[in-house]
Amino acid sequence: MDHPFNAIWRTAVKKSIALFAVLALAPLSGAWAGEDLMAQAREQFKPIPSAPPALMGNAATKERVELGKMLFFDPRISASHLISCNTCHNVGMGGDDNLETSIGHGWAKGPRNAPTAFNAVFNVAQFWDGRAEDLKAQAKGPVQAGVEMNNKPAQVEATLRSMPEYVTRFERAFPGEKVSLSFDNMAKAIEAFEATLITPYSRFDQFLEGNATILNKQEKEGLALFMDKGCAACHGGVNLGGQGYYPFGVVEKPGADILPEGDKGRFEVTKTADDSYVFRAAPLRNIELTAPYFHSGKVWDLEQAVAVMGQSQLGEKLSDSQIQAITAFLKTLTGEQPKVEYPVLPVSTATTPKPVAMQ
Amino acid sequence: MDHPFNAIWRTAVKKSIALFAVLALAPLSGAWAGEDLMAQAREQFKPIPSAPPALMGNAATKERVELGKMLFFDPRISASHLISCNTCHNVGMGGDDNLETSIGHGWAKGPRNAPTAFNAVFNVAQFWDGRAEDLKAQAKGPVQAGVEMNNKPAQVEATLRSMPEYVTRFERAFPGEKVSLSFDNMAKAIEAFEATLITPYSRFDQFLEGNATILNKQEKEGLALFMDKGCAACHGGVNLGGQGYYPFGVVEKPGADILPEGDKGRFEVTKTADDSYVFRAAPLRNIELTAPYFHSGKVWDLEQAVAVMGQSQLGEKLSDSQIQAITAFLKTLTGEQPKVEYPVLPVSTATTPKPVAMQ
Repeated sequence: MDHPFNAIWRTAVKKSIALFAVLALAPLSGAWAGEDLMAQAREQFKPIPSAPPALMGNAATKERVELGKMLFFDPRISASHLISCNTCHNVGMGGDDNLETSIGHGWAKGPRNAPTAFNAVFNVAQFWDGRAEDLKAQAKGPVQAGVEMNNKPAQVEATLRSMPEYVTRFERAFPGEKVSLSFDNMAKAIEAFEATLITPYSRFDQFLEGNATILNKQEKEGLALFMDKGCAACHGGVNLGGQGYYPFGVVEKPGADILPEGDKGRFEVTKTADDSYVFRAAPLRNIELTAPYFHSGKVWDLEQAVAVMGQSQLGEKLSDSQIQAITAFLKTLTGEQPKVEYPVLPVSTATTPKPVAMQ
Repeated sequence: MDHPFNAIWRTAVKKSIALFAVLALAPLSGAWAGEDLMAQAREQFKPIPSAPPALMGNAATKERVELGKMLFFDPRISASHLISCNTCHNVGMGGDDNLETSIGHGWAKGPRNAPTAFNAVFNVAQFWDGRAEDLKAQAKGPVQAGVEMNNKPAQVEATLRSMPEYVTRFERAFPGEKVSLSFDNMAKAIEAFEATLITPYSRFDQFLEGNATILNKQEKEGLALFMDKGCAACHGGVNLGGQGYYPFGVVEKPGADILPEGDKGRFEVTKTADDSYVFRAAPLRNIELTAPYFHSGKVWDLEQAVAVMGQSQLGEKLSDSQIQAITAFLKTLTGEQPKVEYPVLPVSTATTPKPVAMQ
């Protein structure tokens, strides 16, 4: 099955790959010299900075980050008082839940694989379809989704307001505001914390910073292939992805087991036919820690995911050794995991709304 | 409704209270002098030590504690890969889940309120009915319970064995053993970690250590009442409870809303009629952090819990000011909460058994 829009996308992506090949790949004819490889990689990728980036309209003060950490770990922002942000974005497991799709309120199965919260601050927008422009917009989604936390903003505010320590902490994190404790400020505090969940110092970043010997031969071959074959056209920048939207199956649509027909991706956001089965290119940082893969979470093996991408996005059947080399390269993207001290949460009071297991 | 065994218990408890009164209370006739109060409290209670106690048959080496922490936080020991020990024994919420009864596999509702893991090492035995003799025996229960993690020992072992980092860590934590990685050793490692979850330096402990002014007048009145009225007869020792088994309703049985008829407590363990509706006296450390109360989790308010205890265990309707004083004293039992750095968990591999959401 093929759609006209696929042809358009295919042409556009192929053009950019072709241009890229003319500009960059031709002189090297497939065999990358060490310095040239590094120079070329520096054109397309950027290392993760050692400190979180500034946030638009959200000053990440110490008070705000600390409050955000509490909220991130507090299951009482869910209706059941069981599910916290960390349930699906586990800071000990690469920032996601390692499940096909998440389990939420009432043991409901979510529609898409939980993306990692690590380095998410570097993505152009949040969710697989980019429907939230930033992390503070994102944070409000799962709290309210029926299959996730199943809560309501007013109930969340009542819950937080019932605990004097939260009231004080909101006042300190949002000083001078008429109403410090609000659902919006909850989301801003969570964003401030999540922006600290970055993973610098991966071996690949050390390579980008000038350490030419930190990658072995196979990993360098994989990096070269990753650029040569065109993967980097969509998976570039700081996060090797997370920057643009592309149809899954630009050349050849994968089967419905991997690309379920019912989920049209960004089409649901833009209602534009061109955006059918379009998704934000997955960011590939720490990818070895966040199986299973794709928005459907149907592929558990990273080598298989690479093979599927070759076929569906590039129309190329990669050889086993190419797949292994690219996979070896992808494993160099694992950075230093965030150190998180578990927060001691404020204690509930008599006025804290009771958990609702089913509603 | 009254049972013959209640009369027996009532007599026994009343005798011990009477003896206690003769020995200790008589000279003070209800009004406690500061030093006498401290001396008397030291007879009945012990402060939490600043370091974890030794464990019978389980050397808590650094390697074992660190491995135990990983296992405590690893949801992959549950069938669904969603539920970890920390889900119901949340280290940020007083060591329990602040729910009536826990939510487990398939959103099942557990039969009893989750006891805190904090200071549990000081209890004579584990669970509300004492059916596990220690923390390592306890740790195996929830992993296998259908309404909790719903897993099987062989599956847990296969899961852990699929991750090279766990294999290495088990070898280091249990050196020289023929089979280091086993379900039994998983439980021992978890016990070693849980034994570190102690909360020393509460204001009450500082009082026991000689700081006479750290408790205010109302708190001291509460402490005096707690001993005078006989609460301390069951709630003594390091944990102010957790040492012996007593019928809930020794004098007057509470209603079925608080003491559901279907749960006969320790009777299920011993099959002895005398043990009908007998439970381990709840340890009261950090009690203000672990609402709701009782094995049924039906009482959310600590003052109400104190009132219920007065009526059911002592046959006495405590006055409002007495209840408030005892509650104020109980809040001095909140200690320094454990500092826990979230562990970075080993990454799953191709041979890691897949999560089973429903089975």
